[in-house]
Amino acid sequence: MKFKSLKGFRDFLPEEMAARREVLRRIEEVAQRFGFREVDLPSLERMKLFEVKSGEELVDQTYSFEDKGGRKVTLIPEQTPSRARVLAVEKSLNQPMKWYSTSKRWRYEQTQRGRLREFYQTDVDIFGADSVEADAEIIAVLAETMRELGVGNVVEILINDRNLMEKVLDKEDIENKRNVMEVIDEREKLSRAEFFTELENAGIGEKKAKWIDEIVSINGPLDEKIDDLEELVSGEAEEELERMKELVEMLDSYGVLEVVSLDMSIVRGLDYYTGLVFEVFDKKGELRAICGGGRYDKLVELFGGKGVPAVGFAIGDAVIEELMKREGVWPEEELKTDVYVLPVSKDARKEATEIVKQLRKKNLKVETDLKNRNVSAQLNYANYIGAEKVIIVGKRDLKENKVTVKEMESGEERLISLDKVVEKVG
Amino acid sequence: MKFKSLKGFRDFLPEEMAARREVLRRIEEVAQRFGFREVDLPSLERMKLFEVKSGEELVDQTYSFEDKGGRKVTLIPEQTPSRARVLAVEKSLNQPMKWYSTSKRWRYEQTQRGRLREFYQTDVDIFGADSVEADAEIIAVLAETMRELGVGNVVEILINDRNLMEKVLDKEDIENKRNVMEVIDEREKLSRAEFFTELENAGIGEKKAKWIDEIVSINGPLDEKIDDLEELVSGEAEEELERMKELVEMLDSYGVLEVVSLDMSIVRGLDYYTGLVFEVFDKKGELRAICGGGRYDKLVELFGGKGVPAVGFAIGDAVIEELMKREGVWPEEELKTDVYVLPVSKDARKEATEIVKQLRKKNLKVETDLKNRNVSAQLNYANYIGAEKVIIVGKRDLKENKVTVKEMESGEERLISLDKVVEKVG
Repeated sequence: MKFKSLKGFRDFLPEEMAARREVLRRIEEVAQRFGFREVDLPSLERMKLFEVKSGEELVDQTYSFEDKGGRKVTLIPEQTPSRARVLAVEKSLNQPMKWYSTSKRWRYEQTQRGRLREFYQTDVDIFGADSVEADAEIIAVLAETMRELGVGNVVEILINDRNLMEKVLDKEDIENKRNVMEVIDEREKLSRAEFFTELENAGIGEKKAKWIDEIVSINGPLDEKIDDLEELVSGEAEEELERMKELVEMLDSYGVLEVVSLDMSIVRGLDYYTGLVFEVFDKKGELRAICGGGRYDKLVELFGGKGVPAVGFAIGDAVIEELMKREGVWPEEELKTDVYVLPVSKDARKEATEIVKQLRKKNLKVETDLKNRNVSAQLNYANYIGAEKVIIVGKRDLKENKVTVKEMESGEERLISLDKVVEKVG
Repeated sequence: MKFKSLKGFRDFLPEEMAARREVLRRIEEVAQRFGFREVDLPSLERMKLFEVKSGEELVDQTYSFEDKGGRKVTLIPEQTPSRARVLAVEKSLNQPMKWYSTSKRWRYEQTQRGRLREFYQTDVDIFGADSVEADAEIIAVLAETMRELGVGNVVEILINDRNLMEKVLDKEDIENKRNVMEVIDEREKLSRAEFFTELENAGIGEKKAKWIDEIVSINGPLDEKIDDLEELVSGEAEEELERMKELVEMLDSYGVLEVVSLDMSIVRGLDYYTGLVFEVFDKKGELRAICGGGRYDKLVELFGGKGVPAVGFAIGDAVIEELMKREGVWPEEELKTDVYVLPVSKDARKEATEIVKQLRKKNLKVETDLKNRNVSAQLNYANYIGAEKVIIVGKRDLKENKVTVKEMESGEERLISLDKVVEKVG
């Protein structure tokens, strides 16, 4: 009887895992450079946590079940609610708290390209700072991450501000802003006609609908488009526009302004965003959003804590993998080993093991024969594991207190005395 | 409304996580030195996988449920069945395959000291080698791991061999070996009288029970005790004894013989072990087994594959944490930051951000103000995050194109020219 893994779950064997580890390592190293610290939170949480944040519909797309003690629990689809749970009770934390965490997340959804049931995700958040400086830092980490992954030039970060958007809607006395935001959020999936129909269904008259359409069509270089917008809303939303201009200035200092655009159609449906929102897109438009995030200053309150402002993003491994592979920058990792120690026969095993032990003490990656194979089979294996050097330990050489060191790339061999070999190879 | 995490699940905030990461890193680095490669397999698998390996009783102690598609699934309590699943279908793998993997595992059990519902576990296995060399390498990795964690001198690795044990039981024509093994496995928890009662219940007569008791009481230095055993079983189990002697020789070459003892009461109840078995114990005997493992050459066959011999162990983070803390060797990780860049006021932000950007390009961990705080509040925060240096960027100094660099440990301050600061500090 053979078994299959579950649909949407992946097995990573050594070469594949080495590539994925390299990608995750790069993402984490950028966060570390920015002073983010690793945290880790449970994979399983009370289902209520997710209902509070996202409502019951979203919980439907999770792995949720009753545990043996009758508790309703959910395999986390994201880490944000757990973070809010912790922050709602921790009083002693110094602010700001800059946290990252890479772990598995689960969603029960139809699997498709870039959408799996189990995936890695890295969350990067700043808690305790409501400043534009924090907004800028989050965008800068994100831009730097894209650059580090080799896709800096093929993506764009589209940003908007929910407060700004609300003020802009206020300008034309648009009511029902929540519903309107939902329609805007759906816009990408709708035809132009459907968009207007949906606005009408949300109780928006024709004139106002045109205004909304004009606004959400604003899309382009941040500095230019903010000026356009300012003209359009003449006198409204001054504070929000000021903040956006400050953001532009800071993104410029961070050297990432050129990859960021204003896109007024980005509102990120989730109710809990309170300011900056952003999504990263493939410029060619072939892939779904690569990642997204924003400011959510009220979330911790939902979990019973005092106000802890927050801004952050999460990046999963599935879509970025597709993009990196398309661009030819997904790392090709080959097996690598420093030294393979090859006992020619069993009676050379003792000396071989001694060399192995000494080389590992020097922190080298070392393998030796575990299958009592002949010399040529061992050399094949040494080649397979990417050994840089092979030390051949044979009885004949040993009689003269020597071993042979073979450089695998050049094929060059030389005899080295047994007591010098560790020093020379290590 | 405040929320609690589930019982037996842990939150790791930055300092705690840094310590745990350091411990996991050390465990993984030893495996890497021995040439093990990282793999990663799903956290959720079909429940059948675990029933095949361990029987339904053990599945009772897992998080198992029906997913929304009606599949019976289990949050993995261990990774071995998933490994067997993969190996049963993969034909192209070069042997031996040396795999490690650290990930979370889950058990639905009563929580107690050292026993949690979610824990980290590292699995280390050699697949495709049935040799004593592979056995020796696994024991050597394990011993080296204990040394690297700073507990090499306070633990002992107790080993036995299931084949040897069976042959020894054969010597006195003991039938019902499976039941007898189970009783032996329980022995530690039983009084002496209970042990004999249980043997009687397993259909073992008094004389044979005494023989079994004599055998399972053998415990001590490997080389000595093997000689004792050989005398006791005179002429039986020759092949198995020979293998054990070879193992002793190899462990000696690896320099780990002194931490390994023979303990004939170690049989590891799980049916699937086929040769070497071992457990690591705290010498003081205060803690439960720290980890265990052995050879399981038939497991992959259960999953429908061709014979893929295997030997390995798994180490969880809970008991080792208790041991390391008791011994005072659990790492104390403090927050560390290379540089904190301190803008004295908002009008120095641009220059400050430029310095931040340049230093991060040099791979330094750098933070700056995200809360528009005054100088002394910023210095407090810089101190909290363990900044080594603080670069104070103020308008007055900037007029002369200078900034102040403060060494946080000595308190020493010096003025450095703005265009040199990155080079000097970086």
